[in-house]
Amino acid sequence: MLDCKKALAEASGDFEKAVEYLRKRGIASAAKKAGRATKEGLVTSYIHGEGRVGVLLEVNCETDFVARTEQFKNFVKDVAMHIAAASPQWVSPEEVPAAIIAKEKEIAVAQMQASGKPAAVLEKIAEGKIKKFYEDNCLLHQTFVKDPNKTIEQLLKELIGALGENMAIRRFARFMLGEGAKDTAAAE
Amino acid sequence: MLDCKKALAEASGDFEKAVEYLRKRGIASAAKKAGRATKEGLVTSYIHGEGRVGVLLEVNCETDFVARTEQFKNFVKDVAMHIAAASPQWVSPEEVPAAIIAKEKEIAVAQMQASGKPAAVLEKIAEGKIKKFYEDNCLLHQTFVKDPNKTIEQLLKELIGALGENMAIRRFARFMLGEGAKDTAAAE
Repeated sequence: MLDCKKALAEASGDFEKAVEYLRKRGIASAAKKAGRATKEGLVTSYIHGEGRVGVLLEVNCETDFVARTEQFKNFVKDVAMHIAAASPQWVSPEEVPAAIIAKEKEIAVAQMQASGKPAAVLEKIAEGKIKKFYEDNCLLHQTFVKDPNKTIEQLLKELIGALGENMAIRRFARFMLGEGAKDTAAAE
Repeated sequence: MLDCKKALAEASGDFEKAVEYLRKRGIASAAKKAGRATKEGLVTSYIHGEGRVGVLLEVNCETDFVARTEQFKNFVKDVAMHIAAASPQWVSPEEVPAAIIAKEKEIAVAQMQASGKPAAVLEKIAEGKIKKFYEDNCLLHQTFVKDPNKTIEQLLKELIGALGENMAIRRFARFMLGEGAKDTAAAE
């Protein structure tokens, strides 16, 4: 493909450098595609431990053709399995209710209050804790369980670059057997 | 089993009547079990149409032993498939927000206002419409897609009677590809 020829040329024949060049261009091109409608894709599931944990996941792309590629199917399977293992609460920081972020900031500042550090420093520390909160709880910011060198967002952007379509992780549900068991009445 | 011997005796040897006797006793015994803790069970999924519709479902019972029986596994699979087809919004009427029921009543009464019928009759008609609303939208009140002679609740009660443990359909999620697509931003 022209992209690969160009990459090798840019890298003066060095294969590793060419791969890096393509990877960076993939991530850059993802930004150009953002905004294109994503009505196709796949709904997939992952069940772990013979029914102890289950995940339902929707990932969108632009065309049914791309949705049926092995690469897309494998990505969706990987993300579903990742969600089972890493148990995010939301897809992205934008989905976290403002009240929860405010609470986390409050806790962070309260913890640091006794340290006597100046307000500007406390603010920085609180920001760091919010960043960590997103990394722990937002799917896109979590590091991929199969490759801790990448976040799920990076994985997604690479796929967008590789397959050439806009994509989005739309939503997911994760059920752990027996969790949050308020004693719901059985059949009445 | 003693139950079957007794049933045949009660039915004077008539097999069909014996089955009916057991079925009714199963439903009655379900009520006796309600209230027992249900922390075991299964989380299962069902994907339809190569990824166009997906369902995640948790059904609880009392012991892991029962959760692993073919009967329980088949029930859970059936309910998941039913949810994909029948698209309920809630498990039970108790889960429907009061505001939604109030709205449905309001609509029902408004529709009938012009008819000039007395208030007591309008109330009855509105109740009928709410009942229909539950039958359309609450999983337990829906008729089973594989057997319209039974509701999901009856199916559940029969299983409780057959397996001898308290059970509950705890929760479910249903994703239809591309539905409610607010244009979520893709990877940023």
